[in-house]
Amino acid sequence: MRCIDNIRELTDVLTHKKQGSGIGFVPTMGYLHEGHLSLVKRAREETDLVVMSIYVNPTQFGPNEDFDRYPRDLDRDKALAEEAGVDILFLPRTEEIYAGTASVTLHVTEGVHVMCGKKRPGHFDGVVTILTKLFHIVQPDHVYMGLKDAQQVAVVERLVKDYFFPLTIVRVPTMRESDGLAKSSRNVYLSTREREEAPVLQHSLQRARKAIQQGARSPEEVISLVRETIESGTSGVIDYIEVLSYPGLCPVEEWDGEIIVALAVQYEKARLIDNMIITVSEEDKHV
Amino acid sequence: MRCIDNIRELTDVLTHKKQGSGIGFVPTMGYLHEGHLSLVKRAREETDLVVMSIYVNPTQFGPNEDFDRYPRDLDRDKALAEEAGVDILFLPRTEEIYAGTASVTLHVTEGVHVMCGKKRPGHFDGVVTILTKLFHIVQPDHVYMGLKDAQQVAVVERLVKDYFFPLTIVRVPTMRESDGLAKSSRNVYLSTREREEAPVLQHSLQRARKAIQQGARSPEEVISLVRETIESGTSGVIDYIEVLSYPGLCPVEEWDGEIIVALAVQYEKARLIDNMIITVSEEDKHV
Repeated sequence: MRCIDNIRELTDVLTHKKQGSGIGFVPTMGYLHEGHLSLVKRAREETDLVVMSIYVNPTQFGPNEDFDRYPRDLDRDKALAEEAGVDILFLPRTEEIYAGTASVTLHVTEGVHVMCGKKRPGHFDGVVTILTKLFHIVQPDHVYMGLKDAQQVAVVERLVKDYFFPLTIVRVPTMRESDGLAKSSRNVYLSTREREEAPVLQHSLQRARKAIQQGARSPEEVISLVRETIESGTSGVIDYIEVLSYPGLCPVEEWDGEIIVALAVQYEKARLIDNMIITVSEEDKHV
Repeated sequence: MRCIDNIRELTDVLTHKKQGSGIGFVPTMGYLHEGHLSLVKRAREETDLVVMSIYVNPTQFGPNEDFDRYPRDLDRDKALAEEAGVDILFLPRTEEIYAGTASVTLHVTEGVHVMCGKKRPGHFDGVVTILTKLFHIVQPDHVYMGLKDAQQVAVVERLVKDYFFPLTIVRVPTMRESDGLAKSSRNVYLSTREREEAPVLQHSLQRARKAIQQGARSPEEVISLVRETIESGTSGVIDYIEVLSYPGLCPVEEWDGEIIVALAVQYEKARLIDNMIITVSEEDKHV
C-alpha cells in the first residue's frame, strides 16, 4: 500500500496505474471500523485499483460539533487499510485541498431538513464540497458508501446525478451484529441492558417492511408500528422515526419505487441510528 | 461532424473516440462568430478530438434579460462549426441537462461584484452550474475560452482550481479588427462616426499597459489615463474602467503577477467591452 498526501503525486500515480475495471474509491474520515472495511472488500472485488482517502473534513462540522475531538489513529488506520486491500491511501492536507478562499460554494437544497440533517445545518454542504474535490482528484469509476448513513448516500447520489459526475455510487449494506444490531463504534457506550434491548431497532424496521409489503400505504401507520415496537422493547428514547422517498428524501406521495424508514434512538450515553430501504411496487399488496 | 443531443450517446461516442492528446472542448451559446471559430482553431491545433456545445443556458439569464430574444441560428451554426473542424457538436436538451430539481446549487462568491458582473446578479452562478455539468459529461482535457469575456474566464479558472477539475482552461486572445477594435456582433450597431472612434478603447488599454510597464503602480493613475484617452477620443459614455488582480478580480494590492484593465463604453445603440491582461513584475519599472 502506498500513502500519498500530495495531490499532484496522487494524480500522476493514478494516471499510470489505471487499468481495465477502473478505480474503486472509499472516502472516509478515518478511525476505521468493520463498516469501512466492508466498503474496501466490495471495492476490492469489483475494481482493479482501490483508493481510500482519510480526511477529517472541517467544513462538514458545525461550530458546536466535535471536529477537534473527532477520534484519529492514523497508524492503526494504515495497518487496517493495508490488510483490507487498499492500494493507495490518500491523506489530503487541508492547506492543499482547501487552498485559498472558496470562490464557488456548494449548497444542498433538498433532502437535508429531514432525519439527522435537521440538527446539522450546513453539514451536507461540507460533505458535497469535499466529495466534489475528491471525485475530481481521484476520478473513480465506482465510489463505495455505506447505507448506515443513508441520508449521506442519498445526497451524494443526487449530486452525482444532477451534475453528471462520470462515476457510480455503490450502496453497501449496513454491517450488523449476529442479533441484528447495526455495527457502530458507539455500541460500546450501551449498558448491558441497553445492549440487550437494542436489536429492537432492527426488528421494528423488519416489521415496517413486512407491513408495507402486505399493503400498508400510510406513513403514519408505518411510523406508529415502528414506534410501538421500539417503545415496548427498550428504554431508549425515540428521537425520530421517518418514512420518506429514497433517494429523494421527500414525503412519500407515490408508494412506488424506493422508500426509506429511518430512525434514531437516544440511550443514556449513545445515540443509535438505523434504517431500511424498501422497494415498493403495487404488486407487493398481493404478496 | 456528428451532432448529438443525448448525453448517454455522447459519452458512449467519447469513450470510444478518445485518443492521445485528448479532447478539446469549446462551450458556446451558439450564433457563432469569428471569436468562437478562433477557439475551435486553437482546439483543432492542440487536441485530437474537438467537441463544441451549443446551448443557450437559461440559468445564466436574469429575469429581465433576453433569454427568449437571444439570437439562434442552428443551421448556420452547424455549417460554421463543421467548416471550422468541430468533430462532435453537442446540443444539450434542457429537459435532460436540467432534469428534475437541483438538489445542490452552486454560488460564485468572489470576482462577481466587479466589471460586468455588478449588473448581472446570479449570472455567474448559472455559468458555473452549466459548465460543471458539461465538464463532467464531455470530460475534456482542454477547454477553450475567449478573453473577450475575461471575467467569465477568471471565474471558471477559479472554479477549476478550487475544485480540482482534471482539465486546463486555455485562454484565447480576443479577435480584433485591423484597427484594433475587438470583434463583436454588436459592432454593426455603431454609427459610422462611432465606428471610427471606437478603436480608442484598445488604444487606451495599450497606454495603460505602457504606463504600468514604465512603473505606474496606482490604480487611480491608470484609470485616469484610460479615462482621459477615451473621453478625448470618442463620444461614447464610460460605464466602468477597473484595474483588478487577475484571475482573482480583487483590488490590486501587490503589483506582482497578472493585472486586468477592463472597461465598458456605452454608445447610442451598442455597449462595447474590452480589456487587457498585463503581467507585472518589479523588473518592468526599469524597462
